[in-house]
Amino acid sequence: MTLETTLAAIGPADEPAMAAARDLQARLTKPAGSLGALEELSVRLAGLAGACPPPLPEPAAIAVFAGDHGVHAQGVTPWPQEVTAQMVANFVAGGAVINAFARQVGASLMVVDVGVAIPLHGGDTLLDANVRRGTRDLAVEPAMTLDEARAALEVGVSVAGALVDGGAKCLLTGDMGIANTTPAAALVSAFTGANAAAVTGRGTGIDDETHARKVAVVAGALARHRPDPRQPLATLAALGGLEHAALAGFILGAAARRVPVIVDGVIAGSAAVVAAAFAPDAVAAMVAGHRSAEPGAAVALAHLGLTPLLDLGMRLGEGTGAALALPIVAGAVRVLHDVATFDSAGVSEK
Amino acid sequence: MTLETTLAAIGPADEPAMAAARDLQARLTKPAGSLGALEELSVRLAGLAGACPPPLPEPAAIAVFAGDHGVHAQGVTPWPQEVTAQMVANFVAGGAVINAFARQVGASLMVVDVGVAIPLHGGDTLLDANVRRGTRDLAVEPAMTLDEARAALEVGVSVAGALVDGGAKCLLTGDMGIANTTPAAALVSAFTGANAAAVTGRGTGIDDETHARKVAVVAGALARHRPDPRQPLATLAALGGLEHAALAGFILGAAARRVPVIVDGVIAGSAAVVAAAFAPDAVAAMVAGHRSAEPGAAVALAHLGLTPLLDLGMRLGEGTGAALALPIVAGAVRVLHDVATFDSAGVSEK
Repeated sequence: MTLETTLAAIGPADEPAMAAARDLQARLTKPAGSLGALEELSVRLAGLAGACPPPLPEPAAIAVFAGDHGVHAQGVTPWPQEVTAQMVANFVAGGAVINAFARQVGASLMVVDVGVAIPLHGGDTLLDANVRRGTRDLAVEPAMTLDEARAALEVGVSVAGALVDGGAKCLLTGDMGIANTTPAAALVSAFTGANAAAVTGRGTGIDDETHARKVAVVAGALARHRPDPRQPLATLAALGGLEHAALAGFILGAAARRVPVIVDGVIAGSAAVVAAAFAPDAVAAMVAGHRSAEPGAAVALAHLGLTPLLDLGMRLGEGTGAALALPIVAGAVRVLHDVATFDSAGVSEK
Repeated sequence: MTLETTLAAIGPADEPAMAAARDLQARLTKPAGSLGALEELSVRLAGLAGACPPPLPEPAAIAVFAGDHGVHAQGVTPWPQEVTAQMVANFVAGGAVINAFARQVGASLMVVDVGVAIPLHGGDTLLDANVRRGTRDLAVEPAMTLDEARAALEVGVSVAGALVDGGAKCLLTGDMGIANTTPAAALVSAFTGANAAAVTGRGTGIDDETHARKVAVVAGALARHRPDPRQPLATLAALGGLEHAALAGFILGAAARRVPVIVDGVIAGSAAVVAAAFAPDAVAAMVAGHRSAEPGAAVALAHLGLTPLLDLGMRLGEGTGAALALPIVAGAVRVLHDVATFDSAGVSEK
């Protein structure tokens, strides 16, 4: 499916379904409003599905998109680049935190090599969709060509479509890529207008000197490329990573299929901002899984008007914050399926 | 098991197990600290179990303790008292929100009549342990005798013990009782020293006039009974509800068996404060599921030094906030079981 076809398929939330969900929430055996954020979430998901109740978000599927980054050369992280490939091997072997969380919440997990620098040999859970063996250095030139960015976007669209065709009722974003919080910060800055210092965090836990260098790299890239947020493909190509592009496509693919997509942390948040620049209605499909400790994540969510479900001080990526939010999303929807009304249960109202 | 035997069995967290969990967290394939609150939670649960890793908190069991309240006569809620019994019937029939959430997270659910005003006829999931058909009105006399409060505490201890004997590796607190946020506020005030206005909320959603009356009832009860927090049984008897007492016993029972107990909202929070007054070491067994919208809940958690896992604006009770937190607790523990170390996975360190 091409990017253009996908964008054309994305439409607004269905108002009658949302109204039906609000009406049903008011009749269920609980005080009005007592489920807090879960009530509005259930209404949003009814609007996305165009049905009340919307489908339960199960089975759910996590896709972890992996890529490497030319900007690693600028010393923005103390981790060696080969850790991207090593962690992909860890995912395939089932030994990473996202594997543990996927098992815990009953979600499937696949790993997509969209831009790892080192050739990988994985098992059934690793999809080879490598567009380029790592991006160019965004500090000195555009990270991707327009064609590369488009190809990576379409990898994401295609993975989302295949998972939905396979029965997934909910998609979860995952990512792996040493140095990938740097392009994420640059994208969030470019699309939201927030300055580099406000969106650039400590990633895996860098020291003050490295952080200052990272802020300077992000600010320098914005000054060099002068990205125009009304040109999302060019902006993405200049500043993004291959996994950021694929994640943006994955989110757009979910929106086109009207399936909810739980957005993880700052990498996914930056991809969500890109997706919304391509198609503002795509926001209706997005559920913010958690508030990452990375500052750019909160800026991205505020830009999208999304409130995160969890705030646990996590900053791991991989999709871990999205995975932990899945049972809450499922609980919010299940209320509309399972809970009795005052009438049906014979419970008196106040 | 008597209250005294239970209290004698409660001991402090195991420091070597906590140290082992901290050490293991540092060697797992993730940046140090990147799991935020989940890392400290895993350390606490190792300390409780006296083992690293601690057992996975599954199977988990929710117990909903139900009771009625003489203080209902003071007009502290617009809901008729018979809703307590009607909602118990709803739980037994599987139609309440806690039923939906229990199914979602894979926890068992039992309902315990410890003090409902109306005789109930339930199914296999309803335990008749009625101590008294509703408390006396705490606004005019002690809500319970010392013997009634002790009997309700021991109901909770006994339910916890039976669930653990049946294989439960984690207990979750649930409650039902029209007007029960009023005794909860009084208990939190008595044990923490916070004033009535700071701990008295809008429960199911009361208007300004009812809220003012409710604050006055709580303040008046504290002035009348002059509770001494160093006398937890007398304080509980004067101000509490039968379900509050049973929940305090349930929490103490979990602590005595060194099994984690996920504390729900303001009713459970007030019971947790009572439990800690009986046995300060019981706090090691408590996990704060969520931050209820009721102000007394946050005051109780702060008093106990606990940080809630979720903050979703929920104020339903029934155990709903505890149930949604269960997958997060399980995820935190599962990391210690499942995740590879840098050494074992061959991942380079920074």
